Amino acid sequence: MRSVQDHLAAVLAAVGPVAPLDVALHDAAGCILARDLVATRDVPAVPLAARDGYAVAAHETAGAGYDGELTLPVAHDVGPGGPAGLRLAPGQAVRVSSGGPLPLGADSVVPLEETDRGAVRFALQRPAVAGQHVRTVGVDVRTGEVVLTAGTRLGARQLALAATLGHGRLHVHPTPRVVLLSVGDELVEPGTARPPEGAVFETDGHALEAAVRDAGATPVRVGILPDDRGTLREALDDQLVRADLVVITGGLSELVGDTVKDVLATLGTVRLDHVAMTPGFRHGFGTVGSDLGTDRAVPIFALQGDPVAAQVSFEVFVRPALRAMAGHAELYRPSVAARATHGWTAPAGLRQFVPASVLGTPEEGYRVTALGDPSAPTVSALAHANALAVVGEHDTTVAPGQVVHCLVLEG
Amino acid sequence: MRSVQDHLAAVLAAVGPVAPLDVALHDAAGCILARDLVATRDVPAVPLAARDGYAVAAHETAGAGYDGELTLPVAHDVGPGGPAGLRLAPGQAVRVSSGGPLPLGADSVVPLEETDRGAVRFALQRPAVAGQHVRTVGVDVRTGEVVLTAGTRLGARQLALAATLGHGRLHVHPTPRVVLLSVGDELVEPGTARPPEGAVFETDGHALEAAVRDAGATPVRVGILPDDRGTLREALDDQLVRADLVVITGGLSELVGDTVKDVLATLGTVRLDHVAMTPGFRHGFGTVGSDLGTDRAVPIFALQGDPVAAQVSFEVFVRPALRAMAGHAELYRPSVAARATHGWTAPAGLRQFVPASVLGTPEEGYRVTALGDPSAPTVSALAHANALAVVGEHDTTVAPGQVVHCLVLEG
Repeated sequence: MRSVQDHLAAVLAAVGPVAPLDVALHDAAGCILARDLVATRDVPAVPLAARDGYAVAAHETAGAGYDGELTLPVAHDVGPGGPAGLRLAPGQAVRVSSGGPLPLGADSVVPLEETDRGAVRFALQRPAVAGQHVRTVGVDVRTGEVVLTAGTRLGARQLALAATLGHGRLHVHPTPRVVLLSVGDELVEPGTARPPEGAVFETDGHALEAAVRDAGATPVRVGILPDDRGTLREALDDQLVRADLVVITGGLSELVGDTVKDVLATLGTVRLDHVAMTPGFRHGFGTVGSDLGTDRAVPIFALQGDPVAAQVSFEVFVRPALRAMAGHAELYRPSVAARATHGWTAPAGLRQFVPASVLGTPEEGYRVTALGDPSAPTVSALAHANALAVVGEHDTTVAPGQVVHCLVLEG
Repeated sequence: MRSVQDHLAAVLAAVGPVAPLDVALHDAAGCILARDLVATRDVPAVPLAARDGYAVAAHETAGAGYDGELTLPVAHDVGPGGPAGLRLAPGQAVRVSSGGPLPLGADSVVPLEETDRGAVRFALQRPAVAGQHVRTVGVDVRTGEVVLTAGTRLGARQLALAATLGHGRLHVHPTPRVVLLSVGDELVEPGTARPPEGAVFETDGHALEAAVRDAGATPVRVGILPDDRGTLREALDDQLVRADLVVITGGLSELVGDTVKDVLATLGTVRLDHVAMTPGFRHGFGTVGSDLGTDRAVPIFALQGDPVAAQVSFEVFVRPALRAMAGHAELYRPSVAARATHGWTAPAGLRQFVPASVLGTPEEGYRVTALGDPSAPTVSALAHANALAVVGEHDTTVAPGQVVHCLVLEG
């Protein structure tokens, strides 16, 4: 029997960041940048007005003051797109919008609000200061500057910087594509009007589809497969070309079916283990691909079909693997130490994961309450939990007031 | 001039949750449940084995003990899908996988690990306790129980519960569809090989596309429109049918173009304001639709084209509006109070938003450092910020060590 720690180490040793690729900005959102992004131009490339107003040479406005207004003729209008390359004639001004290029010879902008807003001539009350309301060349970014370092997550603000610099594509680790297969003769789709007796509504594929997306990866839910070796092997064959990772749920019973075990056994590098945890005792993990004629070794997880076991195993093993494949440095959910409001028992030798409600603040400390029966966690308890309380392998009880390590699942 | 607070109040007064709709589980992920979800069946519906093992009547296993093993004949094998409805004959056992239905007459499961794993007969060392390793009817969910309340966000674990109960569709507030239009003759797409002189790379649409998705909504980036009234009106006409919200960036100059102002003015219920903030001084907000022949009044924002102004305005006004439209109770980013590591100046009468780096922990307190020049925030500074420092309208300086309110943008 493997410990949780050893199994997680084996999983993380077998996965690595997805090979980087140039992708359009749209597809780069949420991805990790795979190499430093270097500015190939200054931003701004020419001096720009920072306000709507009049571009002037400051030394020509010295006459505006307490003794009266100064008026200057307006020679041109310049919008954000130009015209660029104008030259300011001595004693004149150019009306310019915010973001528009300054004419040569101008060194400052008099904001509209400080003038009479004249279109042919305008009046100003006080002298301009050289440089006022001007965005000088390179004030934002200089050519050659590393503007984003490899490893940066590309959110809206980082994409804005890349777009401003003119990059239409970025070199990123693409989000891993995760193929989800649910195995079981008993499974029917939720919403099926008259399920046969003994049928069970397919849950794992729906839950993991959302969990995969929440982890920043791209799910491909194939759906329900019967407990049949040929069908499973065929499905793997079909799906591997588009998978960076495969997760199979169900078909792991020691008694009947054993479809998954049998099929994976023929693929050579997948091993089935008992992992010292509850829920989620049985685990398959390895790589498939070379046997099936693809040139990539694709990591594959086989998880128990029980929805609570499948979801807990996803949290503990699959999610960190996906984060590593996406290139994230931080693989794990945040965790807090919380005091148990009530006690419970835990099995010796197994790490116990308990759906739990964690309340509190960093200042006052946290309290954790197990939801439902910790020895038989339910889908309902998990749906109402905001954390998983983690009880170590050597603990057989949690006493009221005891500090318990909790994985925080959300807000 | 409107205050930030008044403008935000006007925005939030004009938007409400998107009308609820029945959607497939797949599309419900991330949405807010629009009415209580009530269980229409017990889970489990019949008693189930909680472990792989042998279903027995506990009172018939009393003979197993210190004086020797007890062996029982195995009458059937039952998988997770059944067969259901078997009846246990006296003195017999049924081999059952985890998740399989218990035969009538059985009240406990002897786990495989505690037996000799026999297929025809099996031996057990100690008596079973009635109820052991059995999931009784309704232990997870009872018929009629409210399992998820209206207002719940549907993540993986909540979808698991809905699927387990057989719900293939859920009644939710669908994620708002946000149409993004970028107006400006000067704009070219990032990646354009030889941009004309004076061209500016389109940034707002790309940034807001990611920001909209990050807010849990669905972006529709239309792209670049010229500074032309007819084209803008036509684009609005085309896009309104699929929009729950429209965001236009650019075209707000007081001097040239004014495309957006002119077009929105004809639609009646959109007003252009100066909002007392920097960056992001000019704002259009209102509703469009009835003038354009649709039966819905669609909220519309017109934001300044400057990418920092557009992004800050999105954070301050559009994001809370989108959260409200998606049905979230919590509209705002988390905020912290942080001590300024250095001082800076702020304009009187305007609320100042400054890209900033916030470091620290709740225990030790937070420190905030403005990135770049607070009076002229850049796309680069914003890309490297993890927060916006907010300086009140009445403050004209931030002193080193002063406590500043900060909106946390990430991590």
